[in-house]
This record gives sequence, structure tokens and C-alpha cells, in this order.
Amino acid sequence: MIIVLKPGASKLEADEILSKIDAKGLKPLYMPGSERTVIGALGDERLLGELHLESHPAVERLDPILAPYKAVSREMHPENSIVQFGNIPIGGNGFVVVGGPCAVEGYEKLSTSAKAVKEAGAHGLRGGAFKPRTSPYSFQGLGLEGLKILQQVGLENGMPVITEVVELADVDAVETYADAFQVGARNMQNFRLLTALGQANKPVFLKRGMAASVKDVLMAAEYIVSEGNQQVVLCERGIRTFESGTRNTLDLSAVCQFKALSHLPVVVDPSHGTGVREYVAPMAYAAAAAGADGILVEVHHNPKEALSDGAQSLFPDQFAELMQRLRPFVEAAGRTLDF
Amino acid sequence: MIIVLKPGASKLEADEILSKIDAKGLKPLYMPGSERTVIGALGDERLLGELHLESHPAVERLDPILAPYKAVSREMHPENSIVQFGNIPIGGNGFVVVGGPCAVEGYEKLSTSAKAVKEAGAHGLRGGAFKPRTSPYSFQGLGLEGLKILQQVGLENGMPVITEVVELADVDAVETYADAFQVGARNMQNFRLLTALGQANKPVFLKRGMAASVKDVLMAAEYIVSEGNQQVVLCERGIRTFESGTRNTLDLSAVCQFKALSHLPVVVDPSHGTGVREYVAPMAYAAAAAGADGILVEVHHNPKEALSDGAQSLFPDQFAELMQRLRPFVEAAGRTLDF
Amino acid sequence: MIIVLKPGASKLEADEILSKIDAKGLKPLYMPGSERTVIGALGDERLLGELHLESHPAVERLDPILAPYKAVSREMHPENSIVQFGNIPIGGNGFVVVGGPCAVEGYEKLSTSAKAVKEAGAHGLRGGAFKPRTSPYSFQGLGLEGLKILQQVGLENGMPVITEVVELADVDAVETYADAFQVGARNMQNFRLLTALGQANKPVFLKRGMAASVKDVLMAAEYIVSEGNQQVVLCERGIRTFESGTRNTLDLSAVCQFKALSHLPVVVDPSHGTGVREYVAPMAYAAAAAGADGILVEVHHNPKEALSDGAQSLFPDQFAELMQRLRPFVEAAGRTLDF
Amino acid sequence: MIIVLKPGASKLEADEILSKIDAKGLKPLYMPGSERTVIGALGDERLLGELHLESHPAVERLDPILAPYKAVSREMHPENSIVQFGNIPIGGNGFVVVGGPCAVEGYEKLSTSAKAVKEAGAHGLRGGAFKPRTSPYSFQGLGLEGLKILQQVGLENGMPVITEVVELADVDAVETYADAFQVGARNMQNFRLLTALGQANKPVFLKRGMAASVKDVLMAAEYIVSEGNQQVVLCERGIRTFESGTRNTLDLSAVCQFKALSHLPVVVDPSHGTGVREYVAPMAYAAAAAGADGILVEVHHNPKEALSDGAQSLFPDQFAELMQRLRPFVEAAGRTLDF
Repeated sequence: MIIVLKPGASKLEADEILSKIDAKGLKPLYMPGSERTVIGALGDERLLGELHLESHPAVERLDPILAPYKAVSREMHPENSIVQFGNIPIGGNGFVVVGGPCAVEGYEKLSTSAKAVKEAGAHGLRGGAFKPRTSPYSFQGLGLEGLKILQQVGLENGMPVITEVVELADVDAVETYADAFQVGARNMQNFRLLTALGQANKPVFLKRGMAASVKDVLMAAEYIVSEGNQQVVLCERGIRTFESGTRNTLDLSAVCQFKALSHLPVVVDPSHGTGVREYVAPMAYAAAAAGADGILVEVHHNPKEALSDGAQSLFPDQFAELMQRLRPFVEAAGRTLDF
Repeated sequence: MIIVLKPGASKLEADEILSKIDAKGLKPLYMPGSERTVIGALGDERLLGELHLESHPAVERLDPILAPYKAVSREMHPENSIVQFGNIPIGGNGFVVVGGPCAVEGYEKLSTSAKAVKEAGAHGLRGGAFKPRTSPYSFQGLGLEGLKILQQVGLENGMPVITEVVELADVDAVETYADAFQVGARNMQNFRLLTALGQANKPVFLKRGMAASVKDVLMAAEYIVSEGNQQVVLCERGIRTFESGTRNTLDLSAVCQFKALSHLPVVVDPSHGTGVREYVAPMAYAAAAAGADGILVEVHHNPKEALSDGAQSLFPDQFAELMQRLRPFVEAAGRTLDF
Repeated sequence: MIIVLKPGASKLEADEILSKIDAKGLKPLYMPGSERTVIGALGDERLLGELHLESHPAVERLDPILAPYKAVSREMHPENSIVQFGNIPIGGNGFVVVGGPCAVEGYEKLSTSAKAVKEAGAHGLRGGAFKPRTSPYSFQGLGLEGLKILQQVGLENGMPVITEVVELADVDAVETYADAFQVGARNMQNFRLLTALGQANKPVFLKRGMAASVKDVLMAAEYIVSEGNQQVVLCERGIRTFESGTRNTLDLSAVCQFKALSHLPVVVDPSHGTGVREYVAPMAYAAAAAGADGILVEVHHNPKEALSDGAQSLFPDQFAELMQRLRPFVEAAGRTLDF
Repeated sequence: MIIVLKPGASKLEADEILSKIDAKGLKPLYMPGSERTVIGALGDERLLGELHLESHPAVERLDPILAPYKAVSREMHPENSIVQFGNIPIGGNGFVVVGGPCAVEGYEKLSTSAKAVKEAGAHGLRGGAFKPRTSPYSFQGLGLEGLKILQQVGLENGMPVITEVVELADVDAVETYADAFQVGARNMQNFRLLTALGQANKPVFLKRGMAASVKDVLMAAEYIVSEGNQQVVLCERGIRTFESGTRNTLDLSAVCQFKALSHLPVVVDPSHGTGVREYVAPMAYAAAAAGADGILVEVHHNPKEALSDGAQSLFPDQFAELMQRLRPFVEAAGRTLDF
């Protein structure tokens, strides 16, 4: 940790800080300069958090040397982690495609969509039972009934299923019926929920919040992993920027950052990332090229009738074409679609 | 609602949409143009949500004419709403100041802080019992014990108290011990929590999310109000931008927007809004000048020892000075600090 | 154009606006609603600009139906445009790679870099003679001498050259020595410069400004094209967001947007787009996968000694590896690296 | 300067960097840690720029201790600077109001507007002769003729005048006819223009770019001041964010930052900052409360007919009311409107 003192900071104040650092078992370093005094603290600087040096009136700023996350960092764990989503390993040689509608709207509809995505080559099935909607007047999902339908349709089609969990109280139910939890962008910093998922036994797909930096996502993942659940998949799904031609701005370089900083698998959601049906396929190819471990794609048997997110849902034939065109990109990336 | 069709849209597709609008009881309007066909839907366009026209392949985009929120809109309710926070009315002639530490750290400490803010002229007391923290390794609050301390200290000092609720399961406890709920930025779109608060009987201070537009905040408020709880106070606390010299970018023009679009009271949190102790007071004055109904300010009896957010917490004497200098700004705005 | 009137707007005000629309030769449409009156204007709505309806006190907002740009729009010109950069066509079947150092630092150095990029398979050479630098104390480029060196090295290696023009007064010099102009992100809305380039006879690579939406870029391109120079290449190079792990946030979905809205070729600059050497190659592959027509990559014969942007410049062997790994992605996109 | 090396960096690489620092006359400091080696460089770290350490493959990142700007910093010059705008000092005890139309549209119109703003109490007159417009099809200003009209109207009404300079070639003309240069947001990093203004003899109002951080603005100001022109006024006018209810997001905390980091005067432009007529006055009051030294406000004798920016221009009577209501806020801030 580097501690930059304010211009007028006294030797007394510096000494106070130096001795606090020493008392924590770190090696303190005093670097008086002509314009600023700088203090170093060598060792496990995470211990310094308890000193709350940022609040000290003599401190201009702190520059941590080490990342604030540990368990999820690649430094602690240089090898890629493999997360097991049902029978599908994520983070290995395969490139995983999870498709399905935004929301579970009923058995018949989901079954139709599921057959289509399976036939096109998808490995997993997605579908929301609990829908966080911006408007209280919009369709909020089928809840527990939706979970049951999702499980059934997944089993019938031989695909593991993933669904969003939006509330602590639903963790058990989702764990019972689904093969993976999805934490949505709006809940990425719902720390109570993250802690509960850290104690669960199913993998967690953690979506990046709309205002979350890559480091924020890794800190959120740390919540889960530090509780014991190592099965976390990071998901880039776009951030909020001034650009309004897309629903969000898909940050594919975040895939590079996640891969450089963490050992966890990374998938991309080009559907929410763009919000525009026509842009989903090219962003799926780009995700594969950028080094992602898979994609989540919204597919609806009839988007014209979708109860949510229809504008970004692919028609089944569009998804089939995507899968076909995706293959050479996946292979160019040295990966495979065949599990 | 204005529906712009894609360049190649056929008359048949237009007719399909026109008849759907008609079937919903709105007046359809057909406007063929040289480059685009435009369709209008006159009437209560919120009914059109069920048609999911945005998903229709022939539709380029929808331009709603009316706002998606109703109950919180000024159009539905032209007069300012008054929210009762304990014995303090918010949204009337008074300018409300709520002060206190980021977190309740114990009875003695909170009591010291509370006496200081009371003496300086604050009307309400704030303090977190459940703390959402970016790092799993940071202090997470005292929980229920913190709630009890907060209630006691509030009563002893004759100040209503507000504290953050982060989870559905805590709603009852917070309602029991506090005079108001605070919904933090990270939970602003925790719709399940909002729904529960809409059924509660204490006022809700709803903080703007870091990636939330003014309209998103109003939609979140609509969740609460549409469930029956009219007592909502909107809180501007900064949004996330590229500017890194402050923790967030405090958007004081949001006060103007909220006031123009909604009848709900609006307060400003210059502490989280800037994250820098020295900028809190000027932003508090600016909030009063911009037309806010009050401020939430972090004050700690000794910020150097604060367990969270110390860098933005005021020392008691700084807060006392703030209160003194604030008065003429409040009066210039035609308001009063005296209740 | 759709004109939404304010709630209290009178019939008289509506009539005033309707007759203004009529006088411009557009078909006015009156749509009174229960909550808002809406006015339509059918025809070439760009003529309405002169009415300044946005300033009218009775007008709540304008919703244009048509894009504000014309000459660059795909609607006006459905076929892809091909821009000729020296002997290299951009926008056709080929995927163009332009490599070279951020700045021309001298003949020997540029020559070394140029040979390396040529040998690795690049088609064009880049190098700055006029450098816009954030700090007045940084290296500002070799100016005219740099231009001459660039031209010579380009000729010796059989590669067309591109360099940035930062000022009206330099347009002639750059046109004389280079095969293409580059307009940097900071000058994207230097409208005087754009107008001058619209009267020049060399192609223009227009880089997206850090705060420019896709539509803003298209409007800037319209400045050039409307003056007569059809040879414009759009360049995505990242926008400014809150994410600080990369220098900018590379918006690859902008490639999709540009392609959908305009007939102009699109290239991507993964060097400025990320600012991190290790992320350049994956973002180059992703650009190819997203449908771009080429990339601009910073390569320096010895980045450790580069006078600018060293941290994002590739070493020659890194660039050679990039070119090799890029090929299957380009082919997967149905394009070729061989001209 | 703190230099953090990558995890695998060798002692040899550290030594190479240490000796380079030593050779520049700074004191090198070697701090090996368990996870990272950190190197310090004590002294005038600005000299290290020439070493381009950021490009070194062993370097993870650089953390400068000192700000990159010098001449504009408050550390170098603790007292507030006063800039003389005609007969009006900016940065002293007075709060300066500059009003006028977005563009000079002709003598009669400007004269009417000027009389109105003068009568209402404004100190200076603004008006654009060269207009940077997003669309090539919009009104581009009257140019030299506009400058002459502006000068004449300013003289007739006893007000200094300010106008935007958009191009190097116009610097002399603007210097001749106006009392101050305005550099617009789009030209804030037009470094050639800044350098020329640094050699001019009139004050420069430097507007913050839409994607410019506070530090970027200070670096741009450094360009001007380092060339010899000390007369720089910083202008906050909003940044680009995801919020679309206002044209920009006015960052009033930037006033605090500018005041803390620099000795230069700071004014606020609530017209461009909001883009909404109704929000201009409250943001003007907030600017005064935040500690600004003045405001720039767009006022048009008849905004309904304005050739540009009509939606954000005040009617003369609105401006008169603003001036009246502004006074107590200015006085609460310990300033005066009377010069």
C-alpha cells in the first residue's frame, strides 16, 4: 500500500501512521519528498483495511498495490477454473452456448423453444421464473411454477437449466429445480444474496452490473467464493453509457480483463448487451473471438408474442443460423462446440 | 404511442398493428410517409404494453408519448406531497437535515455523534445497521443490535431515525425500530424489496442507483406507491461517470427533473455524492439552492476511527459550521430550517 | 416528425405549429389526446429545422422519424461503399490491417517498424507526425519532417500511409505526403477541419470521439461527405466510461450499428480502444468477428523506447503472432487478408 | 512516482529501472514485497516522462504522486487568480454574470437581447459568431460580421463581450473584436488552438469537454498558461452520461475540485449544462452556492425564433427573474453582484 500524505502533513502525523502500519505487522517505509511525503506499507496490505487510513485527515489518498480480491484472482490460482453446469464443463476447451427465452411463459411455449435451441446445438437452457422488471405493471414471471416447468423441459431435452434468483428467500427453490443460479445485473451487489449463494451447492452465473467495473464484479464474485462456493461464472452483459443505439454497451474487452485478473470462466450475453436482435449474432462471434468461454442467448419460439425482451430475442431460425456461423469462430479461437 | 415501422414494412403488417391497437380500445392512426410509415395510438398507451409491439419484426421503434409511471407523476398529482418522517414533514416549507454516521458502531459512539448533530441543528438521525459493503472482508454492520441502538439514541435525542434495509427478511425489523426505511443505491431495482416496502407503513427514502436515470428512479418509486405506500422520498446521491476525482458525480439537475416530473419530495446526499469531506458542505448549499427538500449528511464523532466511509464523513465541528452557513442558502430558497 | 405538446398547450398554439408545418410543404397532422396533444409532420422533416420548434414554449419534445444524416445513410445508398486507401480497397471482401507506431520518431526507427509490419502481412502503414498530447510537456511529433519520412518509408515498403491531421492549416501538407487523413477522436467535432477534408482528395479515417454516439459520428461523416469527399472510413476506437481497467471502452457493437445505418466502411482501433498491449490481439480478432472491414494497430520496433503510447504498442513479434492468429477469424467472417 | 512491477519481474529489470531513475537525478527506492516489487522515485517526477516507464514490459502500472499540471495548480500558486474580462474582474469578491444569445443573428436582434440582459443586471455579453454545429445543415454563424456586431453592441451597452473561437485562423480576428475568447467543449483538447491562445493577450474561458475529467481540463489550461497567457477561466458546462433527461449532466462538484486543485477562476454554464430552459435558474443558484465565480447564461430576445439552442435560452423576463432571485444566493456565498 502506498499512502500519499497531504502537502501540509506533519512529521508527527506521518509517525502516527507509520507506527500503525508497524503494529499491523507490515513493514512501514517513510519517503519524504519535496512536495509530498509518501508512506509505504509492505506486506499483506489487506490487513490495513481496519486502520481506515483513508479517513485520516493527513492522508491525501491510498494507492493499493494489490487487488482487493484474493480467492478469485489468477495470482492465487493461476490455472483456469472449470465450473460444472449440469453435465457441461465451462472454462475448459469447450465453448458453451446457453439459449432460451427471457421468461418461462408456460410448458408448451418453453418446450417449443427448448427443442429449437437443442436442435440448433445449444448445450444449456435458460428461462426466467422470477423476472425483475423496470415497471410494476409488466409481467413478473411465473415464480415457482416457472421453475418446475423449466426443470421438466430441461430434463426432457437433456439440457441443464439456469434461471435467475432475485431474492434470498428463493435460493432454496432455485437450487432445487435449476442446475445453476443466475444473478442478474441489478442484484450484482446484493451482498446478502451473494453470501447465501456462497453457501449453496450449485454454480452461480454472476452478471455484471450496469455500473459495475471489472473490479467490482470480481469483488462480488469474492463474496460467493469466500463463503465456499467455488463454482462461479462471470458474465459480461454490457454497461450503461451515453450510447443509446444499443440497450447497453457490451464491453468485450472485459473478457480480456476477467481472464487476466481471474481464473474464473467468463461468458457473454449479447442479447442484453445489445438489446437489438440484429446485433446478437455478430456480438456472439466477437465474444468467441475475444476469448470467452461461452454465451447466453435469448431465443423465443415467437418473439412477436414474447412477454418480455422480445426485441432482443432471436427467432429459432436466426439462432440456428447463429450456431452454424459461430462454429468457425469458435474453432479459430482453438475451442470446440462439441462436448 | 408513436410506432415507427421499418422502411420495408408492408401495408399488411401495418394493418395487423392497427387492428391490435384498435382491439385494445385505443384510437389507431395510420400515417404513411415517403420514407417510413408511422402509426399512432391515441389513448391510455400503457395498455399497449401487453401487445409487445417492440418485438414485432416490422417495428423500428416505439416512442411513448406518456411517461411509464403514473402514481408518482406530477401530472396525476400536481401538488407537492408531504412525507412525514417521525414528527418532521418533508416536502413542505422546511428544509430537512438528517445527519449521523455511516454505520451504527455502538451505543456510546452513536450517542456522541447524535448529540453533536442535534446540537448543530439537524432534524433527523441516520445510521446503518445493515451495511452493504463492496468487500466481503469489510465491516458489515451490527444488524438487529444496531437497529435497537439507533432507536434508543433517536428517542434520547428527540430525533426520528432512518436506516438502510437491504433485504426482504429485514423489513419488519427495520419498520419496528426505525422511523423510515432507506433503500440504498445498490437495491434501487430490487423490485421484491420495493414491493414489500410498498406494503409497509413507514416512509421510504429511495436512493438513486449508480446507473439509474431519473426515469428509472421514478419507476422504482412507482413500485412502492402502486402497492399503497405513498410516503416516498427521492434521494439524489450521484451517478457513476468517468470522472474519478469524486466518488460519484452528484447530479443536482436531477432535483429539477424530479420536481418537474413528480410530486414526491427530493433530498440530496452530498456525502456519497462526492465521497470527499471537503466537498460535502458546498454541495449541501448547492442542493438547497437547486430546490431540494433536504439533505442527508454523514457525520462521525471521529471520522479517523470510522468503520466505513470515513473519508466522506464530517467532523462534528465541520457539520456545525455547515449548518450555520447553510441557513442563508435555505432562506434564499424561500425555505426554513426551523420546524 | 412527431411533435409532443406540453400538457397545457392550447388549440391556438397547436394551430400555429400546424400552419408552420403546412407552410414548409409537409403534411401536418393533428392528434389531440386525453393527456397530450401530438402533432405529426409527414414529409422531409429535415426542412423543419428552420422552424426551431424545439424552442417553442408549447412544445414538450420532438421525435424525429428520420435520421438527421442523409448522404452517409444506408437508406440513401444501400450498397457498401469501397474506399480506396492507396492501392488497398476498404469495405470490400478484404480485411485491411494498418500497422505502425503511434508517432514517427525518425527515419531509422520508422523504417524498422515498417519492415516488421510489412513482413507480418500488414497492408498499410500508420504513424503520427502531428501528435495531440494531453500534456504540453510531452513529445508533440516531428511535424512536416515526420510527414516526409512517413511518405518515404511507405514508398520504400510498398504500403499506403495514413497520418493524423489536427489543424486546418496542415490539410494541404498531409494531403501531399499521405495516402489518407486520420481525424483523431479529439477532433471528431472540429467541424471546420471536417469541412476542409470534405473538399480534399484523399480518404478520411474518422475516429469516434470519446463522448460521441454512433449518430454523432455519422453526423461528423456527413460534414465530410456533404462537401463532396465520399471517401470516408469510420473508426471505432472506444468511448469514455467509468471502467478504468482499460483506457477506453471499445464498443464493438458500434460496428454493427455503423453497418446497419451507413454504407461507409468501418475499421477498429484496438490499441487506443484498450490501451493495454495484452488486450490488443483478442480485440482485433473480435473486431473481425463483429464484421469490421479492418483494424488499425500500434506497433513499435521497441515499445520500451516509444515516445508515446508505448504501453499499448505491440512488439513486432507480438504483431506477427496477431496476424497469424487473425487469419482464421477473418476467414470465418467470409473475408480475406490477401489483396 | 510509484512504479509497481508485474508479479514475475526480475531483480535485473528492477535494477534497470532503478538506474534509469537515478540517472534522471531522482532518488530511487527499492521495495521488494512478497507479491509485488514496488519502486519509488522521489523528486520532480515529471522528469520521468521521458523514460516512458509505462511501456516497460516489467511495469504493471505507474502511480504518480504529483499532479501532471503545474502552472495552474493551487500548490504552485495558493492565492486565487483574478482574470480581467474587460473592466470586470473574475475570481475576486464579485459573482459575474455573462448573458446573451447562443449566436449573433444580426445587429437588431443582438441589441435587443443585450439591452435586456444589461438592464437585468448582467455584467458581460456573450454571442457566437462562429458556431460549431452537429449538423452541416444547421446555421453556422455570421463569422467576421458577427464579431463586428458583437463588439459594437458590447460597446453601446458598456459590457465586455466574449465569443467562441473554433479555429487557429480566427484567433487574431476574435482577439481584435472580443474581450475574451471562449474555447468550446468540442475544442477543449484542440491543442494547437490552446497553444495559440497561450500566446494571445485576451483572457480565455475554457469549457470542459463532454468526456473530459477535471484533470483533463486542468491539463488543457496548462497548455494555455505554460505559453504565457495567465488569464484563464475554467468553465463547467456538463459532461456526457447515460442520463438523457438533460442535455448534459452538470457536474457542480467540479467547481469544488477546480477550486481545490487550481487557483484559476471557475464559472458555470447552466444553459448547456442542462439544455432545458426551466432548469437554468435553479442550476444558476446552485452554481453560486457551490462556490463558482460566475455564470454564463443563454438569453434570447425571442427564443422561439432563435437559430440555435432555443430550447435552453431564457426569455428576457425569465432572465430578469433569475437575476433577482440569484442575489440572496450570491450574498449567502459571501459574494456580490455589484461591481
